[in-house]
Amino acid sequence: MTEAKRGTVYLVGAGPGDPELLTLKAARLLAMADVVLHDDLVPGAVLALAECALTVNVGKRCGRKNITQEQIHAMMIDHARRGLAVVRLKSGDPLVFGRAGEEMNALRAASVPFEVVPGITAGFAAAAALRKPLTDRRSASSISFSSGHHAPGSELQPASLLGATRVVYMPGRDLRGVTAQLRSEGLPADLPCVVVSRAAQPDQHVVRTTLSELDRITPGPAPAILLAGEALGEEEVEIVAKFVPSAAEEPLMIQTR
Amino acid sequence: MTEAKRGTVYLVGAGPGDPELLTLKAARLLAMADVVLHDDLVPGAVLALAECALTVNVGKRCGRKNITQEQIHAMMIDHARRGLAVVRLKSGDPLVFGRAGEEMNALRAASVPFEVVPGITAGFAAAAALRKPLTDRRSASSISFSSGHHAPGSELQPASLLGATRVVYMPGRDLRGVTAQLRSEGLPADLPCVVVSRAAQPDQHVVRTTLSELDRITPGPAPAILLAGEALGEEEVEIVAKFVPSAAEEPLMIQTR
Repeated sequence: MTEAKRGTVYLVGAGPGDPELLTLKAARLLAMADVVLHDDLVPGAVLALAECALTVNVGKRCGRKNITQEQIHAMMIDHARRGLAVVRLKSGDPLVFGRAGEEMNALRAASVPFEVVPGITAGFAAAAALRKPLTDRRSASSISFSSGHHAPGSELQPASLLGATRVVYMPGRDLRGVTAQLRSEGLPADLPCVVVSRAAQPDQHVVRTTLSELDRITPGPAPAILLAGEALGEEEVEIVAKFVPSAAEEPLMIQTR
Repeated sequence: MTEAKRGTVYLVGAGPGDPELLTLKAARLLAMADVVLHDDLVPGAVLALAECALTVNVGKRCGRKNITQEQIHAMMIDHARRGLAVVRLKSGDPLVFGRAGEEMNALRAASVPFEVVPGITAGFAAAAALRKPLTDRRSASSISFSSGHHAPGSELQPASLLGATRVVYMPGRDLRGVTAQLRSEGLPADLPCVVVSRAAQPDQHVVRTTLSELDRITPGPAPAILLAGEALGEEEVEIVAKFVPSAAEEPLMIQTR
């Protein structure tokens, strides 16, 4: 069972926003933490699990960073050196498209013990919410994660493979650049594209389109994620007939192991 | 709060093996399930959470599938139609490198309601255990997930980009083919490579090497995963000085929200 050690920093993935999608380990660490330093995108329902902790929003608000990266490092180190259990809570998975590398280097340099707890990244949460596979034996044998955040174009480098499902984080700020990039790689105009805003949250918003129309849509509120690929192709079959359980004629034996 | 509905199938990610890395939702569904149909790689400590369920191993054992894919579909549908809450439990994330697409199509065709619950995929669990970022603002702006399982070579299609961190699932059976593929894409001989076996499990086994030596190593027991990229480069700094908390001179005020 997870124990939050004093004097230790935990880089923890908060998942996509739904508290039910936290790992057991993350939930336990939050409940035991003395201090939680969290990104701006972590919703209140997740922070509510940190019942006894000082919680500090160290994220960008309205695109403006009120606390520098160096200040975040100093806060983690300072709190840990005071013997506190510190959770550095990041949206999604802590090691994907964040600055965890720099934070871990700062902790190593300060000889502060730390652990990393993975989280459900938005790409997987979006696919689960859509009930679409990310790989398919016939049409998609790999997945590429990239970020549209550092637009325009220069740092957007999805896999240049026709068979890969593309997962583009934060495509919203430069949807035109993302579309142009995917087209320039030879992906077809009719490639299925889905933009999911606030995946796995109560106000989840989904826009389905094709690559040729992608730069004309208006994504929902941030954070948004783009899934593009043949594996997303088949339209959802509407479940019209509600399943009505009937009295089973041959009752199944339920055994407890 | 999650409720397991009767007559419904839940495609659930079991995560990498450590029960603490299950999501809260997965743990609750397992505790409420009537039937759990699980892959062979799901450890007993995870299955133990399904206290009241009939558990059936529908995975490959010793590389041999004792139950066909069609039989798995039939079991899911049959149990759901009897009014039971069915968990189809898959290692890692259910939508990555599995046959979830086919299983969802079968459920749609049978008008059986289903939900998908994401899980921590082995690639993220391995990176967390290694405490290495998967992206880095300077050296790795994207991540590519592929599978070495369908070796030799033909279906192995990682991103052909120098800046992407490669995550190759199940590279063990054809490490020579995987190495040749990565070399053929122009990746350098000194590219840092780490093979993690049984990530996030008590018997986790790590081999660090470079691309030029990759085909000479002996990976640990399955399941194994290969992480390759510049982001994995910096050698772990040994934490030699154990942190000793000192009595803080300026005690930090801990406030409960």
